[in-house]
Amino acid sequence: MGSIATRSPFVPETLVRLAPIDGVRFATAEAGIRYRGRTDLMVAVLADGTTVAGVLTQSKTASAPVLACRKHLKKGTARLLIVNSGNANAFTGKRGREAVDLTVEAGAKAADCTRHDVFVASTGVIGEPLEAEKFAHLIDGLVKSAQPDAFEAAARAIMTTDTYPKLATRKALIGDVEVTINGFCKGAGMIAPDMATMLCFIFTDAAIAAEPLQALLDEHVETTFNAMTVDGDTSTSDTCLVFATGAARARGQEPVTKVGSKKLRAFSAALHDLMQDLAIQVAKDGEGLSKFVTFVVEGAESAAAARRIALSCANSPILKTAIAGEDPNWGRVVMAVGKSGEAADRDALSIWFGDHCVARDGERAADYSEPAVAAYMKNREIVIRINVGVGEASGHVWTCDLTHDYVSINADYRS
Amino acid sequence: MGSIATRSPFVPETLVRLAPIDGVRFATAEAGIRYRGRTDLMVAVLADGTTVAGVLTQSKTASAPVLACRKHLKKGTARLLIVNSGNANAFTGKRGREAVDLTVEAGAKAADCTRHDVFVASTGVIGEPLEAEKFAHLIDGLVKSAQPDAFEAAARAIMTTDTYPKLATRKALIGDVEVTINGFCKGAGMIAPDMATMLCFIFTDAAIAAEPLQALLDEHVETTFNAMTVDGDTSTSDTCLVFATGAARARGQEPVTKVGSKKLRAFSAALHDLMQDLAIQVAKDGEGLSKFVTFVVEGAESAAAARRIALSCANSPILKTAIAGEDPNWGRVVMAVGKSGEAADRDALSIWFGDHCVARDGERAADYSEPAVAAYMKNREIVIRINVGVGEASGHVWTCDLTHDYVSINADYRS
Repeated sequence: MGSIATRSPFVPETLVRLAPIDGVRFATAEAGIRYRGRTDLMVAVLADGTTVAGVLTQSKTASAPVLACRKHLKKGTARLLIVNSGNANAFTGKRGREAVDLTVEAGAKAADCTRHDVFVASTGVIGEPLEAEKFAHLIDGLVKSAQPDAFEAAARAIMTTDTYPKLATRKALIGDVEVTINGFCKGAGMIAPDMATMLCFIFTDAAIAAEPLQALLDEHVETTFNAMTVDGDTSTSDTCLVFATGAARARGQEPVTKVGSKKLRAFSAALHDLMQDLAIQVAKDGEGLSKFVTFVVEGAESAAAARRIALSCANSPILKTAIAGEDPNWGRVVMAVGKSGEAADRDALSIWFGDHCVARDGERAADYSEPAVAAYMKNREIVIRINVGVGEASGHVWTCDLTHDYVSINADYRS
Repeated sequence: MGSIATRSPFVPETLVRLAPIDGVRFATAEAGIRYRGRTDLMVAVLADGTTVAGVLTQSKTASAPVLACRKHLKKGTARLLIVNSGNANAFTGKRGREAVDLTVEAGAKAADCTRHDVFVASTGVIGEPLEAEKFAHLIDGLVKSAQPDAFEAAARAIMTTDTYPKLATRKALIGDVEVTINGFCKGAGMIAPDMATMLCFIFTDAAIAAEPLQALLDEHVETTFNAMTVDGDTSTSDTCLVFATGAARARGQEPVTKVGSKKLRAFSAALHDLMQDLAIQVAKDGEGLSKFVTFVVEGAESAAAARRIALSCANSPILKTAIAGEDPNWGRVVMAVGKSGEAADRDALSIWFGDHCVARDGERAADYSEPAVAAYMKNREIVIRINVGVGEASGHVWTCDLTHDYVSINADYRS
């Protein structure tokens, strides 16, 4: 992997501190899978009774670890998560499955649990065999030495081309018991809906059964991780898992077992907020980006149509390069709306760059001022709002611009 | 429009010369629509009795000239084509329609024909009003002065960011009468299936009714212009028109009036060949390209599925930048196959870079040699072949790599 030339302009000055969550402990190691001088192996040890929900890549060439997670999710319980960076263990055939088997077996033994309670994820280069025998023997020691106060270290161990770890924390009441939700994720390129090479792990001490937890995750992923794209490329390894240890039971939280329970209203809002926070952090670390861009589409036939139009804009190389060049080229917005295939009324279309209306009712706004809009384009965060004039639904997508640095980073990733 | 920093490495040393075709005359002018010191207005005057077929952009925000062509194609006859470069007359609302009306009116008067026999196309910046009154008065003089031996001049007048004019010529027998097919096109960026900002005009002296001509065009566009992408961006202005003057009747060609007539077998093959030639020329002039890339997909469920998988590869920024970096990153090919959404058997997938098998049956080929494949990547023309292992169908897409120059060209197009 080449050295990364640039840091995102959105690198936070100070990282959010994530307080420990009862029932979760972490350990990391320098296993030397691909990188030198940094951690690349992480385990999260989960208390007995932990429930789990997950969303995985839709790729038709999903990696071996993704297939294992899909299988293990059916049982809905978890005791151990093992993640490595540097090698995605994707497109590695029979050897890939063997590497997963070896890892899961070592994990089940170390955590004294069934294989179904072990979850695995891998991120990094595709197509290179993952030599699990090089790190499987470390797992037992990691499980034994795991500590609760180590979210940041865990987040750092799973990074690849990220220029900063993405961390978020929220609190919510279930009944009158306060629970905590902590999450971290990695991802910077090959990021797109269906989550691309994004790994996201969320932990809570709430006591929630797997089924309602899955329902919440499915609901919120649409407007958070699936509303974010860097380059339109979907990876073979996308994994988002939520673990609920249930430790809040000890403080009197009554376990929630029903989908749609009103008791989860505040928790659901907090989870959505945390997932949105993490999704925006990923877009703000898009490879080589100079600007963070939000496309808001209004007046669409449906929320799904609005998001597809926003995605068509957010994945258009010619529009993303114009934004990199601080060029208020709204003609390319028109193009991207048109190519989405979704209903739009050309003669009712209106477009805003920030507060500047550049087009109204299908033509250039009468009061359009190119200097004013060009000045707006110098901002680091750009909001482009589009009303397509056919309905009432709206949607948004977060993305970044397409710069010379994106080309540099991706032209020499393996060399 | 900024100056274009680079010329395609595929600029031909000598341009193909297109011989005159009976019944077609051209004239060009420097109308000063946007550019200075170059032609930007072209008319093609067509003999009485000329038939026409066309394929137009599927964009939901199609330009005013595209809407006019769609309407005029219903009649199937043509006497005049008027094309301007520098301004696409797209997203210009009521004024856009008025500019088309003014142009068509001036053309009909100059060529002494009905408005339905006048075809128009515009290419260039979107969203700026096209001031047709600045050039409409030139049309009469152009029609009068038009000359048959001027294909190259016509092709040059319609260029925008092209670094060379794209010209092709073929001959074919209909019965025992030889007919000629000449074509030229423009396009370099915002190029994608459904043809993007591509304008293509094809002329023949064959006598073929509009209906069979349309059937041939529809058939061949799928495997030529719709199998070519530069950046996945579809324009508001794509227009491909074929004009048949029927002048070969004078040499004894019996007019062909039926769809599917066997008499058109050789003509159909020649037309396909010419369209393929032009499509490849467009891909070889992709903005900022350093390499011409062909993705061939085999073993797919259907030809359409094969092309969609090939397109998923050809439109992947992360794969195109790897190719620019001469990096044989076949893991990104796996990713792009996976994200296409089409059926693929991960464990039967095989990939070749040129003649080098890099992956076989779902994992890295046993005899894979990175130095050999890295050496292959230094070629200017790259062929990546993928067998997805689920069926018998195949398809291909032509594209180019994604380079620093692409970003440079598109970041300052308007400034």
